[in-house]
Amino acid sequence: MAQQTAPAPAPVHEVVISEDVRTVHDGGKLAVVATTEVRDRHDLSLVYTPGVAQVCAAIHARPALARSLTIKRNSVAVVSDGSAVLGLGDIGPEAAMPVMEGKALLLKELADVDGYPICLDERDVDRIVDIVAAIAPGFGGINLEDISAPRCFEIEGKLRRRLDIPVFHDDQHGTAIVVLAALRNAARLVGKQVGPGLRVVVQGIGAAGIAVSELLLAAGVTDLVGVDRGGIVTARRSTARDPIFRRLGKRSNPRDLTGTVEHALDGADVFIGVSAGNTISEAQLRLMGRNALVFAMANPVPEIEPAIARRHAAVVATGRSDHPNQINNVLCFPGLFRGLLDAGATRVSTTMKLAAADAIASLIADDELSAECIIPSPFDQRVVPAVARAVAEVAHREGAVASR
Amino acid sequence: MAQQTAPAPAPVHEVVISEDVRTVHDGGKLAVVATTEVRDRHDLSLVYTPGVAQVCAAIHARPALARSLTIKRNSVAVVSDGSAVLGLGDIGPEAAMPVMEGKALLLKELADVDGYPICLDERDVDRIVDIVAAIAPGFGGINLEDISAPRCFEIEGKLRRRLDIPVFHDDQHGTAIVVLAALRNAARLVGKQVGPGLRVVVQGIGAAGIAVSELLLAAGVTDLVGVDRGGIVTARRSTARDPIFRRLGKRSNPRDLTGTVEHALDGADVFIGVSAGNTISEAQLRLMGRNALVFAMANPVPEIEPAIARRHAAVVATGRSDHPNQINNVLCFPGLFRGLLDAGATRVSTTMKLAAADAIASLIADDELSAECIIPSPFDQRVVPAVARAVAEVAHREGAVASR
Repeated sequence: MAQQTAPAPAPVHEVVISEDVRTVHDGGKLAVVATTEVRDRHDLSLVYTPGVAQVCAAIHARPALARSLTIKRNSVAVVSDGSAVLGLGDIGPEAAMPVMEGKALLLKELADVDGYPICLDERDVDRIVDIVAAIAPGFGGINLEDISAPRCFEIEGKLRRRLDIPVFHDDQHGTAIVVLAALRNAARLVGKQVGPGLRVVVQGIGAAGIAVSELLLAAGVTDLVGVDRGGIVTARRSTARDPIFRRLGKRSNPRDLTGTVEHALDGADVFIGVSAGNTISEAQLRLMGRNALVFAMANPVPEIEPAIARRHAAVVATGRSDHPNQINNVLCFPGLFRGLLDAGATRVSTTMKLAAADAIASLIADDELSAECIIPSPFDQRVVPAVARAVAEVAHREGAVASR
Repeated sequence: MAQQTAPAPAPVHEVVISEDVRTVHDGGKLAVVATTEVRDRHDLSLVYTPGVAQVCAAIHARPALARSLTIKRNSVAVVSDGSAVLGLGDIGPEAAMPVMEGKALLLKELADVDGYPICLDERDVDRIVDIVAAIAPGFGGINLEDISAPRCFEIEGKLRRRLDIPVFHDDQHGTAIVVLAALRNAARLVGKQVGPGLRVVVQGIGAAGIAVSELLLAAGVTDLVGVDRGGIVTARRSTARDPIFRRLGKRSNPRDLTGTVEHALDGADVFIGVSAGNTISEAQLRLMGRNALVFAMANPVPEIEPAIARRHAAVVATGRSDHPNQINNVLCFPGLFRGLLDAGATRVSTTMKLAAADAIASLIADDELSAECIIPSPFDQRVVPAVARAVAEVAHREGAVASR
């Protein structure tokens, strides 16, 4: 045989994984288990042929039985295309798996929901919609995750219209719900109301920024000003962008401000940062009104250093676990899906999101409430049942539940 | 308000589910569990942000790490469109779920493989291929199930060409592997060889019939005659059908038989029925040669009553658990996927299928072998490790394994 040169290995950029992180990820973070034993031929004849045929035939005759006789009852697909993962950006479906597994793990550990990670090797909006719609029959809900904007808006919107199970993009609405919960308590602390009197600035008009703005508007805020890299969002500026951005342009900024973030911050009560980090200076922050509430949630570097923000703000919250008042989606999605599945909900409504935020906020009693405690810990065992109950109650009240 | 009449409920054809079957199906047969605990913020920082980002970045830099640091290592998607479920036919994706859950349950209980049931609300061949290819990144293998012929051939073929993980249509190849295993032992019992000297008739040229025929041809059988409702499959008759059927027409029937099943059975050594039930009369069976081997696998009614068949055949096997020699796919798929995942296999080859059949057959020692015992029990604990080892060995030998 002719002598051959082995091909040179492709260059590998090794990424260091710390030992404790590697240990919990080794072999993946989830497993599937059977809820019934198969010890002998008799068991086999019940869980598989011929017994299983009775169950299949029953569901075929009455599809609603799928919600009691299959895993649909308690299953949520955790779906991503890996296009906007954490701070890492577009890393693709395989590299996104650890996040989706983490999400499924938290669904299970905190709320006993069975999350199935599904990472898609597909980028086209309509194809993603078709794929998720096609796999939907076995699931009681869809959690979209880490999909880049503005594609995420279109994908979620189309799936919501098409499916009769709840579709929830956590990066948008999970963030919005927890922000609203924290804002209710921060406002309560300084004697303000989440309503028409509150002047709110939202910096960063991506998936989270849009959803936060929409939910605050739904909660009664009227004076909301969005700011992105191009400055203040106005009805005119927004015409060039996607429909979601245009809608924000029309519904926000009632005083018709223009210009930079400084014009927005002047006299504002609330700053909510869901942007890239390090965008606000101390001088800019000083422009805010008395008892300012500052949620600087960019990760890992907040919009402004919390220590500096605290010199001028009554309450400071961040996205980080090493500071007080962490705005963490984990406070919402496990309880939310628990409630949706318990109710057999057919959709997630704005009223449910508002109810979830109120449920989270109400867990902090007046005598616990402080500048360092506006939001419960994700490990507060009251969070999941409170959110689940609130969401399920609204689902039943709205008649947004499947027949059984 | 105007008085309204409630709409009449749609007529429901209730299907009776026996109490023991309902009990094991109540709430579904699977759950997802976390393989690591989350008790506090420190745990959360490992399994989720910020720790998880290290793992995502590492997989992005070196995709092969997905096979050790995500559930891909041990996960199989159990995929159906519900178009050909058991004997029930086209019952749709939701009603197919209990079978896919049963399959996943057996993968877990018998071989510690994590099976994820995915039932598709889609019928178009190319769209199903696109969907399964899109969800593939998180899985180490795809088990196709209960998809109608000839669509199943096309779907499997296209997916095999497109993906770098094994794609296995169990209704075809699982059946074929167990039939070959049983046939090796039945032939051994009567002193015959699975090879050119053996005259084999296969009745029913659907998914299973085609796969059984192909695998027997690969195992060295040359005199194989296929029979369907139109009679003996000939090269000429097959031209009108799909490519898979045409290939069988060309490769089988070397004596150029034509006519009905009687012409095929005349002097045959082996009858393999994978058709509708009750197709063969006692008189027809009598046409077979000495020491006939009869596998009448139609379910629940075999091609011929086993009691009648035993009058004329040396060995009778069926698909039923209440007769000896049950040809049961459960003997194959758990160990097969165990071996494929252990090896990190990139495909399933014919050689792997032949090795799996030999591994199953070889578990029946000469002194155990009898007309009532040609195949091990699915609960024989040696089956899974034997099949897994054989399959993994071939995968390594063929270089059909992913780099890690």
